[in-house]
Amino acid sequence: MNDESKIISWVRTRPQRRDSDLVVGIGDDAAVWRPKPGHDLLVCCDLSVEGVHFRTAWAEPEMIGHKCLAVTISDIAAMGGAPRYALVSAALPAGKPDGFIEGLFAGIFELATRLDVEIIGGDTSASPGPVFLDTTVIGECATDRAIKRSGARPGDLIFVTGSLGGATLGLHFLQTKHEMYAEHPGHDILKRARQQAITRHLMPEPRVLAGKTIGASGLATAMIDISDGLSTDLAHLMSESHTGAIIDAESIPIAESVALATQSGLEISPLDLALHGGEEYELLLTSPPENRRALQEAVGSAALQLSCIGKVVSDPGVRIRAGETLTELAPLGYQHSF
Amino acid sequence: MNDESKIISWVRTRPQRRDSDLVVGIGDDAAVWRPKPGHDLLVCCDLSVEGVHFRTAWAEPEMIGHKCLAVTISDIAAMGGAPRYALVSAALPAGKPDGFIEGLFAGIFELATRLDVEIIGGDTSASPGPVFLDTTVIGECATDRAIKRSGARPGDLIFVTGSLGGATLGLHFLQTKHEMYAEHPGHDILKRARQQAITRHLMPEPRVLAGKTIGASGLATAMIDISDGLSTDLAHLMSESHTGAIIDAESIPIAESVALATQSGLEISPLDLALHGGEEYELLLTSPPENRRALQEAVGSAALQLSCIGKVVSDPGVRIRAGETLTELAPLGYQHSF
Repeated sequence: MNDESKIISWVRTRPQRRDSDLVVGIGDDAAVWRPKPGHDLLVCCDLSVEGVHFRTAWAEPEMIGHKCLAVTISDIAAMGGAPRYALVSAALPAGKPDGFIEGLFAGIFELATRLDVEIIGGDTSASPGPVFLDTTVIGECATDRAIKRSGARPGDLIFVTGSLGGATLGLHFLQTKHEMYAEHPGHDILKRARQQAITRHLMPEPRVLAGKTIGASGLATAMIDISDGLSTDLAHLMSESHTGAIIDAESIPIAESVALATQSGLEISPLDLALHGGEEYELLLTSPPENRRALQEAVGSAALQLSCIGKVVSDPGVRIRAGETLTELAPLGYQHSF
Repeated sequence: MNDESKIISWVRTRPQRRDSDLVVGIGDDAAVWRPKPGHDLLVCCDLSVEGVHFRTAWAEPEMIGHKCLAVTISDIAAMGGAPRYALVSAALPAGKPDGFIEGLFAGIFELATRLDVEIIGGDTSASPGPVFLDTTVIGECATDRAIKRSGARPGDLIFVTGSLGGATLGLHFLQTKHEMYAEHPGHDILKRARQQAITRHLMPEPRVLAGKTIGASGLATAMIDISDGLSTDLAHLMSESHTGAIIDAESIPIAESVALATQSGLEISPLDLALHGGEEYELLLTSPPENRRALQEAVGSAALQLSCIGKVVSDPGVRIRAGETLTELAPLGYQHSF
C-alpha cells in the first residue's frame, strides 16, 4: 500500500470510538468538533524523524507508531489535560518493506484506542529522504486548570512520577551488540534489565491518568514531562517559574532495569542515568507541602509511585545534595541542536 | 541559527497579536485556549516536503514559508471557517544557507499576521534528508455552520471563486528555462504572463474572507478548495455527496496569465490547465439556484468573482458540455501517490 488515497481510505475505515463531540471526522478538508462548555483546549505537536528519533533497525513499525503518538500525548498529560483528538502526518519513502505503513498506523491506532484518542486528520506525502512523522494532539481540561511550567513558588516541594533512567539504559543497550553481554557474569539478570530498558525506550507510556488526575485535583503549581532528562527539564521548569531548586540525590527514583543492570555488574552510574537520561516521559511537578498526601493519593489512584525529590527555592539554578555536599546540577540532558 | 532552542526562543519573541482567547501561548508543553461559546472548532494539517512540494532553487525561503501555511489555511476556508491558530513543525537539514530558517519563518509570520492567525506551537528537528514542514491550523465557525463535502444535492448549481489554470502554468514556466522564451514573438506579453503565473504558483492566497463569508451566510451546501485540480476536486465533492455534475466548458473562469500566454502564442490548452491544474486554492462550492444572487454578493464583498460553472445531478460522475457535446470528465488533476 503506497498510494496516498489508499492510505487515507484505509485509515478512514479503521474502527474508532466515534466521539459524540465530533461533528466531522477524517476525510473532509478539516475535522470539526464541538467543544464542551466549561473547558479549555490544549494543542501540541511532535516530530519523529527516521535516523534522528528512531531507527527501523531497532524498532518494529508498530513501536515507531506507538512512540510518535505517545510523546505528543505526554505533553497534554504534562498540562494536566485529557487527550481527545490526534492528527498524523507521514512522509514515507518508497522501498519500505511490505506492511511498514500498516504496522506504523496499527501502533498509532492501538495506543489511540486504548487512551480514548480519536484520529481525526492528517496528511501523507512521498519522502525523498527518511520517514518523517508529525503528530498533533488536542486535549481538554476544566477552565483555568491547565498546569503551566511557570507556576512553581519557593517552598513548593518537587515530585516525580514513576522511576528514571530506564529509557536511556535501553538506548545504550540498543547501541551495543547483544552478544557483548553473553559472556557477562550476571547474564540472566542483565538479560532481564536489557528487555525492560529497551521496552521502556521504544514503547514509552504517557502518564495520561496521572496527568488528568493531577490536573483535576488542582494540587500542582507547575508541571512538565521529562523528555530531555530530569536535570534539563527541571532547569526549564525553574527558569520559567523564576525560581531555583535543591534536590536530594538519594530521593531520585531509579528504574528497576537500571538497578538490575548495576546488580549484574554493568558499569553504569544509576544516578547519572536518572538525572540526565531523556525520553522518560514521567511527570515532574511542584506543589506546596500541605498538598503532599493528597497528591500521593491522586497519583496512587493511577497506580504510579510519586517521589518527593526536593524543594523549590528563590535562588535561581538547580543544586543537588549528596550526603553533606551541595553542588550545582548542570542540565546535561538532551540539548536541542542540529 | 541552527540550534533548536534558539529557533524556539526567536519564534517566541516574534511580535504577534496576542489573542484574548489564548491562555498559554508558544513555549509550554502545550498551548491552551478558551473556545468561544456557540462555535465549532476545525483542525487540519498539511505536509510540505522539499523536492516534492517545493524546490529551494525556485522559491525564496519566505515564499516556502508562506505557501506551507497558506495551503492549510485554505482547508479551513473551504469549510467556511475562520483560521485562528497555527502550529509549525520543521525538520531542517544542516548546510542550508544563512538566513534560510529566518526567511522561512518570516514568510509564515507575514501571512499569519495578515490573516489574524497566531502561531501557538510547533516542533523543530534535524533532518538527515530534505526540509520537512508540517503545518496544523485550528479554525472556528458558528455551531453547525461548517460546510462539508457531502452536502451537495441534485439541482444545486456549482460555483468557483476567482479563476483557474494560473498556478499550473506557473509550474510549467518554472520547469522551463526563461531564455527559451527570449526569442518568442510575443515576448513582452509572455513575460507578464510568466510573472503572474509564477507568483500564483509560489504565493497562493487562501480565500479566507470568501470562505468565512460563505460559511456565515449559510448559503452553500458543499465546499472544497481546489488543491488537486477542478476535475479531481469536483469528483471528490460529487462522490462524497453521492451525486454527479454537468459543467459547461465555456463557463470555466480562465486565469489572466493563461489568457495572456495563449495570446502571445504559447502552445497551451487554457481549458485543460483550468480543468486539471492543481494548487489553485480557489473555492469550489454548490448551492441551490435561489441563493445565486446572495452568494454572488457575499463573494463580491470579498473582492472575488464567482462563476457558475454547472449543476449537480443525481447520476454519479462528472460530465462536461462543450458546444453540443457532453463527455465524461476524467479526474486528471493531481493523483496522490508515491
